[in-house]
Amino acid sequence: MNSEEILKLLKSVERRKLSPRAATERLKHMPFEDIGFAKVDHHRALRQGYAEVVFGKGKTAEQVAEIVRAMIRHKESRQNILVTRADRKIYSAVKRVRRAAKFHPVSGMVTIERSKEITGKGTILVVSAGTSDIPIAEEALLTARMMGNRAEQLYDVGVAGIHRLLEHRGMLTEARVIICIAGMEGALPSVVGGLVAVPVIAVPTSTGYGASFGGVAALLGMLNSCASNVSVVNIDNGFGAACVATVINRL
Amino acid sequence: MNSEEILKLLKSVERRKLSPRAATERLKHMPFEDIGFAKVDHHRALRQGYAEVVFGKGKTAEQVAEIVRAMIRHKESRQNILVTRADRKIYSAVKRVRRAAKFHPVSGMVTIERSKEITGKGTILVVSAGTSDIPIAEEALLTARMMGNRAEQLYDVGVAGIHRLLEHRGMLTEARVIICIAGMEGALPSVVGGLVAVPVIAVPTSTGYGASFGGVAALLGMLNSCASNVSVVNIDNGFGAACVATVINRL
Amino acid sequence: MNSEEILKLLKSVERRKLSPRAATERLKHMPFEDIGFAKVDHHRALRQGYAEVVFGKGKTAEQVAEIVRAMIRHKESRQNILVTRADRKIYSAVKRVRRAAKFHPVSGMVTIERSKEITGKGTILVVSAGTSDIPIAEEALLTARMMGNRAEQLYDVGVAGIHRLLEHRGMLTEARVIICIAGMEGALPSVVGGLVAVPVIAVPTSTGYGASFGGVAALLGMLNSCASNVSVVNIDNGFGAACVATVINRL
Amino acid sequence: MNSEEILKLLKSVERRKLSPRAATERLKHMPFEDIGFAKVDHHRALRQGYAEVVFGKGKTAEQVAEIVRAMIRHKESRQNILVTRADRKIYSAVKRVRRAAKFHPVSGMVTIERSKEITGKGTILVVSAGTSDIPIAEEALLTARMMGNRAEQLYDVGVAGIHRLLEHRGMLTEARVIICIAGMEGALPSVVGGLVAVPVIAVPTSTGYGASFGGVAALLGMLNSCASNVSVVNIDNGFGAACVATVINRL
Amino acid sequence: MNSEEILKLLKSVERRKLSPRAATERLKHMPFEDIGFAKVDHHRALRQGYAEVVFGKGKTAEQVAEIVRAMIRHKESRQNILVTRADRKIYSAVKRVRRAAKFHPVSGMVTIERSKEITGKGTILVVSAGTSDIPIAEEALLTARMMGNRAEQLYDVGVAGIHRLLEHRGMLTEARVIICIAGMEGALPSVVGGLVAVPVIAVPTSTGYGASFGGVAALLGMLNSCASNVSVVNIDNGFGAACVATVINRL
Amino acid sequence: MNSEEILKLLKSVERRKLSPRAATERLKHMPFEDIGFAKVDHHRALRQGYAEVVFGKGKTAEQVAEIVRAMIRHKESRQNILVTRADRKIYSAVKRVRRAAKFHPVSGMVTIERSKEITGKGTILVVSAGTSDIPIAEEALLTARMMGNRAEQLYDVGVAGIHRLLEHRGMLTEARVIICIAGMEGALPSVVGGLVAVPVIAVPTSTGYGASFGGVAALLGMLNSCASNVSVVNIDNGFGAACVATVINRL
Amino acid sequence: MNSEEILKLLKSVERRKLSPRAATERLKHMPFEDIGFAKVDHHRALRQGYAEVVFGKGKTAEQVAEIVRAMIRHKESRQNILVTRADRKIYSAVKRVRRAAKFHPVSGMVTIERSKEITGKGTILVVSAGTSDIPIAEEALLTARMMGNRAEQLYDVGVAGIHRLLEHRGMLTEARVIICIAGMEGALPSVVGGLVAVPVIAVPTSTGYGASFGGVAALLGMLNSCASNVSVVNIDNGFGAACVATVINRL
Amino acid sequence: MNSEEILKLLKSVERRKLSPRAATERLKHMPFEDIGFAKVDHHRALRQGYAEVVFGKGKTAEQVAEIVRAMIRHKESRQNILVTRADRKIYSAVKRVRRAAKFHPVSGMVTIERSKEITGKGTILVVSAGTSDIPIAEEALLTARMMGNRAEQLYDVGVAGIHRLLEHRGMLTEARVIICIAGMEGALPSVVGGLVAVPVIAVPTSTGYGASFGGVAALLGMLNSCASNVSVVNIDNGFGAACVATVINRL
Repeated sequence: MNSEEILKLLKSVERRKLSPRAATERLKHMPFEDIGFAKVDHHRALRQGYAEVVFGKGKTAEQVAEIVRAMIRHKESRQNILVTRADRKIYSAVKRVRRAAKFHPVSGMVTIERSKEITGKGTILVVSAGTSDIPIAEEALLTARMMGNRAEQLYDVGVAGIHRLLEHRGMLTEARVIICIAGMEGALPSVVGGLVAVPVIAVPTSTGYGASFGGVAALLGMLNSCASNVSVVNIDNGFGAACVATVINRL
Repeated sequence: MNSEEILKLLKSVERRKLSPRAATERLKHMPFEDIGFAKVDHHRALRQGYAEVVFGKGKTAEQVAEIVRAMIRHKESRQNILVTRADRKIYSAVKRVRRAAKFHPVSGMVTIERSKEITGKGTILVVSAGTSDIPIAEEALLTARMMGNRAEQLYDVGVAGIHRLLEHRGMLTEARVIICIAGMEGALPSVVGGLVAVPVIAVPTSTGYGASFGGVAALLGMLNSCASNVSVVNIDNGFGAACVATVINRL
Repeated sequence: MNSEEILKLLKSVERRKLSPRAATERLKHMPFEDIGFAKVDHHRALRQGYAEVVFGKGKTAEQVAEIVRAMIRHKESRQNILVTRADRKIYSAVKRVRRAAKFHPVSGMVTIERSKEITGKGTILVVSAGTSDIPIAEEALLTARMMGNRAEQLYDVGVAGIHRLLEHRGMLTEARVIICIAGMEGALPSVVGGLVAVPVIAVPTSTGYGASFGGVAALLGMLNSCASNVSVVNIDNGFGAACVATVINRL
Repeated sequence: MNSEEILKLLKSVERRKLSPRAATERLKHMPFEDIGFAKVDHHRALRQGYAEVVFGKGKTAEQVAEIVRAMIRHKESRQNILVTRADRKIYSAVKRVRRAAKFHPVSGMVTIERSKEITGKGTILVVSAGTSDIPIAEEALLTARMMGNRAEQLYDVGVAGIHRLLEHRGMLTEARVIICIAGMEGALPSVVGGLVAVPVIAVPTSTGYGASFGGVAALLGMLNSCASNVSVVNIDNGFGAACVATVINRL
Repeated sequence: MNSEEILKLLKSVERRKLSPRAATERLKHMPFEDIGFAKVDHHRALRQGYAEVVFGKGKTAEQVAEIVRAMIRHKESRQNILVTRADRKIYSAVKRVRRAAKFHPVSGMVTIERSKEITGKGTILVVSAGTSDIPIAEEALLTARMMGNRAEQLYDVGVAGIHRLLEHRGMLTEARVIICIAGMEGALPSVVGGLVAVPVIAVPTSTGYGASFGGVAALLGMLNSCASNVSVVNIDNGFGAACVATVINRL
Repeated sequence: MNSEEILKLLKSVERRKLSPRAATERLKHMPFEDIGFAKVDHHRALRQGYAEVVFGKGKTAEQVAEIVRAMIRHKESRQNILVTRADRKIYSAVKRVRRAAKFHPVSGMVTIERSKEITGKGTILVVSAGTSDIPIAEEALLTARMMGNRAEQLYDVGVAGIHRLLEHRGMLTEARVIICIAGMEGALPSVVGGLVAVPVIAVPTSTGYGASFGGVAALLGMLNSCASNVSVVNIDNGFGAACVATVINRL
Repeated sequence: MNSEEILKLLKSVERRKLSPRAATERLKHMPFEDIGFAKVDHHRALRQGYAEVVFGKGKTAEQVAEIVRAMIRHKESRQNILVTRADRKIYSAVKRVRRAAKFHPVSGMVTIERSKEITGKGTILVVSAGTSDIPIAEEALLTARMMGNRAEQLYDVGVAGIHRLLEHRGMLTEARVIICIAGMEGALPSVVGGLVAVPVIAVPTSTGYGASFGGVAALLGMLNSCASNVSVVNIDNGFGAACVATVINRL
Repeated sequence: MNSEEILKLLKSVERRKLSPRAATERLKHMPFEDIGFAKVDHHRALRQGYAEVVFGKGKTAEQVAEIVRAMIRHKESRQNILVTRADRKIYSAVKRVRRAAKFHPVSGMVTIERSKEITGKGTILVVSAGTSDIPIAEEALLTARMMGNRAEQLYDVGVAGIHRLLEHRGMLTEARVIICIAGMEGALPSVVGGLVAVPVIAVPTSTGYGASFGGVAALLGMLNSCASNVSVVNIDNGFGAACVATVINRL
C-alpha cells in the first residue's frame, strides 16, 4: 500500500464511504511498506546509489548472469555493476549478458562500468603490506572506483622495511580515507595511522602460515592498534572496507 | 638539528669552512627530527589538536596529576584535557591541580574543559543496546564532545525491542557519524547500519555472561555484520570509537 | 500517537477539517508507536504478561529498589516481580519497598509474589546433574513458578550414576517441558532427551575446573547432543531456560 | 522378552512349572527390553512415530539404499522416510528401491512420502537471513513437513534491511513455533524473538567468511541473544531444529 | 523392591493370590532398583569400597562437617574419609566431628584414616616436574594412599634437567602405575612414558604464566604425547589420577 | 658397547693391559647404550615386545613396504606387524613383501599376523557410540588383538538410547579394561565409567559437525567426565588407546 | 638521491650556485632514500648479504622464474639463491633460467649455489623429533647452509626415547646455535635446552593429529619451555629459524 | 660417584680386589651422576655461572629468604642473586638475610650484587613500546645486567609514532642483541627487526584490554613477524628474554 492507496483510503473517509474507526483499523494492520517505509531502506538505497553488487561465491555462473540481467533490465538505473569473488566461468556468462563486462583476475571481480561520475570528495588510498595481500587490495581498489571514488594504490610497504613506507609520505598525507591491508602480524595500520590524521580502515588478510590462523593474528593486531584513528572490518573483506570508505568519502 | 642548524651548516659550506664531502657525511648521520621530521608526527599533532588524553588505568593518582600538571604548563595549549578509566581518587588529585576538573562517575572520566570550540562538521550519535553498555557509551559521548563535536545519545534500543529503535529514525538519519555500542550478540550495528547511509563505528562491550566471553561474541557479530557501512574497534573501546568518529567528522 | 489519536485525525478528515492528502503526509511521518506498533512489542508484553524482571547484577541495591518501586506504582499490574542475581543487600533494599519480598539465597533471587495464577498447561521439570548445579537449577525452578507454571525438581542425577536417573522415569515422562542443567561434560540432556518425547532445554553451567573452561565443555557437549529434542541456552542461564520453557508451556 | 513372554513366564509360575525363586533369577538377568523397557526408548519411538531418518553423509549410496530397503520391509510402518545430506548418487540408489522417492537438491535431501497426516497443532515458520542460509532453511522446512507439520517459509529477511522482516509481521505472529536460521552475525533470532511470544529455535549456519569461523560467530550471537524466548541448536543443524520444533508443535 | 520383594510377588503368583497378568503389570512399572539394579551402581560401590570422598570446594565448613558426620554414622563402614580442596576452616569443623582428622596444608586435604589395609597390588609412583606442581602431586599421593595403595613420590624432575630424572630410573621401573604431573610444556609424561613399560597417567597443572593458559599448554602437550602408554586426566585433577591409578592397581 | 664389552674392558684392567685412569676416561665418554642403557629403552622394547608398528599416513606405499621388509628381515622377531592409517595402495605394496598381509578397510589397517599368543590377562572391550565412530573403534580393536589381547566389541550404544547400553551390562562387567569411543558430546565414557569398576580409556572422535570442532567437544566432555575411572587419549587415537589398554592388561 | 647527488648539491652551495636556504629546503623535502637512508634498510642488506630468497607458495612457476631471472641480472651479486615452498614445476621453470639450479624434494626447495663462502663462526645443529618433522628440518638445514653456515643434522631423537638423544651429547655440545624442530607435544627443545649452554631456536611443526591443532600444541609447549635458553619462531617456519640462527652465528 | 670414585673402583679391579664381572655390575647400576654426567647439566651450570635465580611468585617471603640463605652459604660462589616477581614483603625478608639486597619496585625484583664482572661481549638493548610495558622491560634489563651484560634501554617508542623510534637508529645499530617488548598489537619487533642485522628477541606483554586477550594478540603478531631475525619468548617473560640474550651475547 503506497501513498496513492493511503490517499484513496483517506478520500473514502472524506467521502464518508468508510468510517474513521474502520479506517483506523485498516491502517493499523497494513504492512509497513504500504505507508512509505520503503523510505527507511537506506541500505538498499545506498547500494543502488553507489553500485549494484553480486557476491559471486557459492553461486553458479548461470545464477550470477541471471541476477545481472535483472539489474540491467531496470533501464533507468545507471549504476556500475560489480560481481565479487568471481571466476572466468562467471565472467563468460556475464559477458554474454553484457558485452562491456570486464574481468579482473587478480581480485576475481567482474565489472560493468555504466557511469564514470565521481561522487567521492577526496582520494581513497589503498595501502598493502605484502605481495600476497594484493588480491584483497585490488578488490578494495576496484570497488572504491566502481562506487565513484578516485582511488590510488601503494603496495608492498610492509613494516619490516619501514623506509619504503616513509618514502611515500606524500601519498599518505594527500589521501582523504586510507584502506590498509595486511596479513601476518597486521602491524601496518598502526604505523600508517600514526602518520596521518584521516580515518584508516584496516583489513586483515588470511595470508601467512602457522600461527597466523587464517587472518586471526592480523585481525587481533589491528583491533589492538595503538593508533587511535583505525577501525577494522572482517578478514579478507576488501569489498566491505571500500564500502565504509565510500560512505566516509561522500561526507 | 632543526632547519636553523641545517641552514648554519650549509652556510659553513658556502663560506668554505666545511667541505661539501664533510657536510654530506654529517647530513647523512644526523637524527631524523633534526631535518624537520617532527612534522610527520601527525599522530601527536592529531591528539594535541583535539584534546590532551591520559589513560588512567594502571597509573597512580599522583602520576595522573603529574601528567595533567605538565599539560597545563604549556600555556599556549587550549585543548581540553581528558583522563579515561579514572576513579574518584584520581579525580581528587587532578582537582588539586586544576579546580575546573569534573568527574563523570558513569564513564569513569575526568575532564578539564578549556575550549568550547566545535570543529566537527556534523553530529555524532552514540547508540547503545542495553543499560550495562552505558558506561562505554558515555565514554564515547564525552570523548566526542571534548574533541570538539556535537554529540547526542540514543540509549537502550536493543534489537529485541526493535520498535524502540525505529521510533527514533529521525535521530539516526540526522547524524553524520554513528557510534554503535552493544554487548551480548552485538547485533545492533547491523540493524542501525541498514537504516542509515553514514559510517557506523561498532564497539563491542564485555557485558553479558556465559558464552559472551568478555565481549568476543559481540566482536565477532560486529565483524560479520551484513551491513556494509560498519567498521569495528576493540572491545570496550568507547574512547577509540570517538577518536575515529572525530577524524571522520572533521573531513 | 495511539489509536485514539489516529481516530481523531481520521474524524478530522471525515469532517473535512483536514484534507486526505495532508492526513496522508502526517500518517507517513509519525512515529511508529503512534499507529499502534506498541502492540508489536510482544517482548515487553511477554515479560509483563508473565512477570516483571530486574537483572540485579551490576546494579546497586538502591537502583534495584527504585526499579521495583516503579513496577509497583503501576497499580493495575498484578504480575509477580523477580530480581535475579541479587544478594542480601539488594534484598534489604527491596524489602523496604515491599514487605512481602522474599529472598532465596541458593539462587540469589528476590521475589514478590502478587499472583498465584497457573497459566502453563503442564509441568516443567528441572533436572540437574551435580550439587554445584543447584543454584542455576533453583533459578530456573523459581523463575518458572513465578511465571505461572507448575514446576518440579529432580536433582543430583548425573550420568555417572545412571540408575538414579532411571529410578525417576515417572517424573520424566510426566513433564510437559524439561529443563536440564549440567556442568562438567554436559551429558545429562542427551540421556534425558533419549528417555522422553517432549522438548528438553539444556543449560550448561560454569561449574567444574580445569578443562571445563567456565562451562564451554558442557555447552559444546549439549550443542552436539545426539538426542534430537534438545536445544540449548547460554551458560548459567537458568532464567532464560525458564523463559523458553514458559512460552512452550503456554502453547 | 516382551509382555507376552513375561506373562508366559508368570503363567509357568502359576502352574508351578517354575519355582518363584528360579523365575526371580530369570527376571533379574534378562535383558532390559525383555521386561518392557523398550517402552522407555521414547527416542526411537519418537523418530519412528514421526519419520524414519537416515543421515546420508559418510555413507555410500549402497549403504543408504540398504537401510531404506530395511525400513520399507516393515510393512506396517507408514511413516515418511527422510535421507539428509544426500546427493544425486544416493538419490538414484534410493529411487531404485522405491520409485516414489524425490530429490530436493537445494537441501540435499531424499524423501519418500508415505503419509500426509498432519499431527502438529500449529504452523512452524522457517525464517532465514541470507540467500546462502537457504539450504539449511530448506532442510528444516522439509523435515518439519515430513514429520507431520504445516510449515511455511520466510526467506531473505536479514537484519540489515529490517523493514523486509517487519513487512511480514503477520506470518510471524501466526506461527506456533519459529525456526530462525542465520549465518554471519546471527542477529536475526534476537529481532524475531522480540516480535513474537512463541518459542524461537535458532540455527547458526556456517556461511560467511573471515571471522565467521564456520558459524561460531553466529552461534555465539544466538547464545547471547537478548530475546528471552530463543534457544539454540548446533551449527547447520536444520534437521535438529525441525525435530525440536516438532516435539513442541505436538504439545 | 529387592530380590526378596520380587520373590514375595512371585510366591503370590504361585499361590494364585495374584494373577500372572497383574504381576506382569507390577513388574513392568516398578522402579529399576527394585529388581536389583543398585547392583549396577559399581561407581558408588567403587568409591565406597575405596574411600569416602567429599569435594570441599564451594561447600561451607558446616556442610562438609555434616557430610562427614553422616559418613561416620554408618558404623559398619571402615573406609578412609577424604576431603579434597579443603582449608583450615573446614579442617576445624571436621576435627570437631572426629578428633582423628588430619590436615595436609600443601594439598589442601583433610583425611580421617580408619583403615590401613593395602589393597593395591603394586606401587603407585607420583612424579612431578616443578615445585609449583607439588600441591597437585600431594593430592594424588595422599588420595592413592587413602585408597589402599603403596605410593611413593619423585618430585622436581623436570625435563630441562633430564639427568635428575635418569638418576632415579630405579624408582620408575619398580612402579606398577605412574602418575606424572607437570605444568608449563607438559613434556614430562612423554619422557617418563618412554622409560617404562607400565601405564602413565598424566595430569596437567595450571601453573606457569603467559601462554600456559591455565594448563591448556600442558594438557595439549600430554594429549599429543609421542609415548604410547600415556593417558590424560583433567587439569589439576590429582584426585582423579589417583582414582584411575587405583582401579588399575587393583587389577 | 654392551655388558660383554664392558666386561672385556675391565678384564684388560685386571690384566694390566689398560690403566685404571685410561679405562675411566673410556667409560666416561662412551655412548649411553654401550653401558647397558639400551635396557632403559623400554619404549622400543615395549613396541617390539607387542607388535611392530608403522604409521602409514604421510608415507608412500613404497616407503611403508620398505619398512615392513626391514622388519621381516630380523628373522628372530615373531611379533605381529601393523600398519595404521593405510589404504589399498599401501596394502598392495605390503602384500608384495609378505603374502600373508591382510587389509581391514573400515579401520584402514594392514596386518601381518605372525603370532597368536595371548599375553593380556583379561578381555579388552571396545565400546562405541555411533556408526561413524566405528573406524576408530576398529583401529582400537585390531590393535588390541595384534598386541596379544582378547578383545571384544560393543558398538552403537550411544547415550541417547541408554537402554541399549544397559542391555549389555554383562559384557561391561566382564571386561578387564574398557576402551570407550565417542564423538559428538563424548558422554559415553561417563555413563560406562559409572557402571564398571575397571579402567576406562576414552577416545574422542572427530565425527559430528558444527560445534563438534573436529572432536574438541568430545575431548572436553571426556576430560570433564564425572566418572572417576576415566582417562583420555588424543582425538581419533584408537591405536594409542589400545596401547594404553595393553600395558594395563599385562599387569 | 644518493651520496653523489647530495655531494653535487653541496658543491653547488660551495660554488654559490645555490643559496644555503634553497639547499635546506631541497634537503628537507627529498625522499628518504636520497639522503642515504637505504643504509638503514639493514633488512634488505641482510637478505642480500646472505642469500636471495623467493617464497614460492602462491606464486606460479613463471612468476618465480621471472623473479630469479631478475636476481641473476644483477651481475655483481654473488649470493646464493633460494626458493622455498617450491615444487617440481617451479623447479623446471627455474632450471630453464639457470642450469645450476637444484631441487630438494623433501624440503620443497630450489637452490642455486653461487658462493661457498662460510661466514658463520660455528656450527648450526638442526635437531628434530619425528620422521614427519624432517621436511621442516631440511628447510632449516638447507637455508642455514645457503646462508653461509656449517650446518649439521640430528634427526629422529624424540623425547619418548631419550637415550637416542643422550647418545649424541657430543654433537649437541659442539654446536654454536641449535635449531630444534618438533611437532606433537613440542617437548624436545626443553630437553635439548637443558643439555646445552647455547641458544636454542624452537620450531613447532604442524604434524600430528587430533588435539595437535596444526602445531598449536607444540607451539604452546615451546613457549612454556622450562629451559631458559629457548626462543620460538612460527609453526613450520624452518626458514625463519635458519635466518635467526644465521644472525646469531655471525656475531 | 665421581671420576675419583670410578678410578678407585678400577684400581680395585687392577689390584684384583674386585672381579671384572662384579665391577661391571656396579658400573651398570650406579646413578648417572656418578660417572660424570653432572657435567651434562649445563643448564644448572649455566644458571650458576650467570646468576642465582629465585622465582618469587607463589612463594612466601620466608621461603624465598630461606633459599637465598642457602645460596649465600656456598661461600665460593660469587654470582649475583636475583629474585623475580617479588614484593616489599619478600624484600624485607631477604634484606634480613643480606643487608646488600636492593628492591626494584617497577620490575618487582630483589637483587644482591656480588660481582660486577662483564662477561657478555656486546650491548643488549631493551626496546619497549608503551609505558605499561615498562615493568617487563625493567625485568629484562635488570636480569641482563645481573647476568654480566652491558644493557641499555630505549622506552616508549611504539609504532604509531614511528619517528621516535627512527630518531634512535644509533642505539639500535650499536646493540649486539635486542630485546623488544610490546603489548597491544605487538608490531614493534617487526619494525625493529627490519632496521637491524642482529637477533631480536620479542616479548609479548599482557597489557592492553579487550581483544588483546592477555597478550595473545601481541604473541601472534610477533610469531607472524615479517622480519626474519625475530624469535619469541612467552608472554611477560622479560626474564627469559634476558636469559636467551645472555647466551647469545656470550657467543
